Amino acid sequence: MVSNIKNYMAELGSKARRASRKMASASTQQKNQTLFAIAKHLELQSEALLNANKKDMNAGVEKGLDAALLDRLELTPARIDSMIEGLKQVASLSDPIGEINGMKYMPSGIQVGKMRVPLGVIGIIYESRPNVTIDAASLCLKSGNATILRGGSEALHSNQAIAACIYAGLEEIGMPLDAVQVVSTTDREAVGELITMPEFVDVIIPRGGKGLIERISRDAKVPVIKHLDGICHVYVDDRGDLEKAAKVAFNAKTQRYGTCCTMETLLVHEAVAADLLPSLAALYQEQNVELRGCPKTIAAIAGAVEGVIAATEEDWSTEYLAPVLSIKCVDSMDTAIEHINQYGSHHTDSIITEDYTRSRQFITEVDSSSVMVNVSTRFADGFEYGLGAEIGVSTDKIHVRGPVGLEGLTSEKYVVLGDGHIRQ
Amino acid sequence: MVSNIKNYMAELGSKARRASRKMASASTQQKNQTLFAIAKHLELQSEALLNANKKDMNAGVEKGLDAALLDRLELTPARIDSMIEGLKQVASLSDPIGEINGMKYMPSGIQVGKMRVPLGVIGIIYESRPNVTIDAASLCLKSGNATILRGGSEALHSNQAIAACIYAGLEEIGMPLDAVQVVSTTDREAVGELITMPEFVDVIIPRGGKGLIERISRDAKVPVIKHLDGICHVYVDDRGDLEKAAKVAFNAKTQRYGTCCTMETLLVHEAVAADLLPSLAALYQEQNVELRGCPKTIAAIAGAVEGVIAATEEDWSTEYLAPVLSIKCVDSMDTAIEHINQYGSHHTDSIITEDYTRSRQFITEVDSSSVMVNVSTRFADGFEYGLGAEIGVSTDKIHVRGPVGLEGLTSEKYVVLGDGHIRQ
Repeated sequence: MVSNIKNYMAELGSKARRASRKMASASTQQKNQTLFAIAKHLELQSEALLNANKKDMNAGVEKGLDAALLDRLELTPARIDSMIEGLKQVASLSDPIGEINGMKYMPSGIQVGKMRVPLGVIGIIYESRPNVTIDAASLCLKSGNATILRGGSEALHSNQAIAACIYAGLEEIGMPLDAVQVVSTTDREAVGELITMPEFVDVIIPRGGKGLIERISRDAKVPVIKHLDGICHVYVDDRGDLEKAAKVAFNAKTQRYGTCCTMETLLVHEAVAADLLPSLAALYQEQNVELRGCPKTIAAIAGAVEGVIAATEEDWSTEYLAPVLSIKCVDSMDTAIEHINQYGSHHTDSIITEDYTRSRQFITEVDSSSVMVNVSTRFADGFEYGLGAEIGVSTDKIHVRGPVGLEGLTSEKYVVLGDGHIRQ
Repeated sequence: MVSNIKNYMAELGSKARRASRKMASASTQQKNQTLFAIAKHLELQSEALLNANKKDMNAGVEKGLDAALLDRLELTPARIDSMIEGLKQVASLSDPIGEINGMKYMPSGIQVGKMRVPLGVIGIIYESRPNVTIDAASLCLKSGNATILRGGSEALHSNQAIAACIYAGLEEIGMPLDAVQVVSTTDREAVGELITMPEFVDVIIPRGGKGLIERISRDAKVPVIKHLDGICHVYVDDRGDLEKAAKVAFNAKTQRYGTCCTMETLLVHEAVAADLLPSLAALYQEQNVELRGCPKTIAAIAGAVEGVIAATEEDWSTEYLAPVLSIKCVDSMDTAIEHINQYGSHHTDSIITEDYTRSRQFITEVDSSSVMVNVSTRFADGFEYGLGAEIGVSTDKIHVRGPVGLEGLTSEKYVVLGDGHIRQ
């Protein structure tokens, strides 16, 4: 039990700050060896991990957590294997730290460039999935940051058991033990402290439901890299290839319902609505996707399928995360772009068109972290973008936008070389 | 007079948001033409500008503003010329917006890259210098952002007169008039509103004294790009060339006293203190620089000059912005680096050394926005770094670090191209 949360968190913070200095100059080899050592300890301790998780699961059942939550909370041998794989994969990524770019001579004779450096201390606040402890720790380690992890209270035993493996790995390689710290209290005040210690914490990354993230953004005194809504659109242009349109629109909705890059609203140029929508609506209905359409959509679909609900104003700004799709007919690409910028969440939006000029205009004018042409929105993902790993998706514009990989956890400093140069 | 500040600011904000959408897709030519048009109107209206400024100056004298403040407030024909030159110079910079980088094919067949885009709406809060109105407006314009400018109350008439020239320029080229808005009330509540409207403002850049910046950072609900202290160091290594050392250390302190990249503390390896310090101290004293030293420094200088004061603990973390210098002898580069990371402000720090390995270690381990080898700290400046212009210097690590030019006012979005690609 932690009696004084404020002091406890300040101590974690000041330890993390000290560790971050050492982490910043750790070699690539040291960091990779640590990731492999942690993987080894996860493997050695898998029994202990499963037992700790059992305690959390039993408590969760007693508390009446719902099935989805319990599923996210559960550790299985397969899930432990996948954490181990994840560690090895992060080790295989190239080290962003220390990379020097663009060293150029200036008229004064000095040579100026930029070197990539860690952010320092990263606070991560997440909910029930214990695997986030490893995902987050490994990415922060590889990017030379110290991290303070605050997982969900329902996963406390699991997270502590995982933390023990992380410490064992750090110790084995001689890295600072405070490079990764897992908050050991479930007191909510700990979160309040973590997000208001700019002297110790450089950035907060919250992962979880929208409520959590909004609360943290509102109260934080530290920059927050966050993801709010994923209200993503596919717009089928009248110059689009309708076969591609149907394929992409079906995939963007049905490949997975619960992700942030799943399409929530389909926009269709009214000139192609009658050709596209009836057969596409039938496909959705086979998958039990509930359809909510504007009047023109309903008219276009009427003969093909039944039960299309009239969409309300609220539908256009709703992230269903479920087998529900709103469909709207628009009279031009301009109207589609306006709709996306107004009702969307600036996450991921795709146009289906074969028109060169329109593709360029869509890319320029849609204000989203990912803009796509003839691609399913479901590709908006760090792995698909070649980042190698992902700590989250940012819907902010400051610092990092879209899927956040190792580089999103870094900054750059100027490096200036000379030979006794003085300013005139 | 503005009666309801909250509504007034929200209206500015929502107008800025709308204008920012149009600004984001303005062509390079439109933006440059606007900059030239504003320059023309400044020239045509120079009489009116001087008259408006006279009102501010008279009110300032009446209010008893000190000479330094009045100097900053004053507009002269030469200063108007320099604003005009500044506009032309920003027009000559290459346009960062729309640049697409790194388009690469992924294993899935999609092609992924990044496009540079404006941040959106930038709020700038500054004090008495009216030329900031033009500097800030021109950089925001060129980077495709809308901006809300809140200058000092003592410069209100000058800023309004400059604003009139900006509006005339925007109008002449057919750009959205709300792309640049100057807050027309001096009510302090306006600042409080500006920094707490995340729905309308994407980033705040405060320029001014430390008090202003701390207050804004503390209260803002919008990301802040800020500069706090500039406690910069030169460390003279025992493997440094002492001629270069003396030249750089003298320049870093005396070339200008009041800038954020002026050296405030000189660190000297004790093995070279006796060789370097006596003659260097004499040079400083010729310039009436007050010296505050550690005991070893005082001992080393004793024979050469008199009146060296004993430095206190406080001196090591003081930004003098004045002809005062603290000097400390250290027993190794490691101690120097530790001192810099602990007492410095992570701004700009330079080592004087001819040693290859030490230069690399200093660059890696010093956690500052600019790390230098054999260069005067006075070079830490957007113009000297080739940015073409500077809206400020960031001592943060998030988003942008060091001198902030046009690129610091932008973000990147992902561009994804395909041919009907769907996720498996």
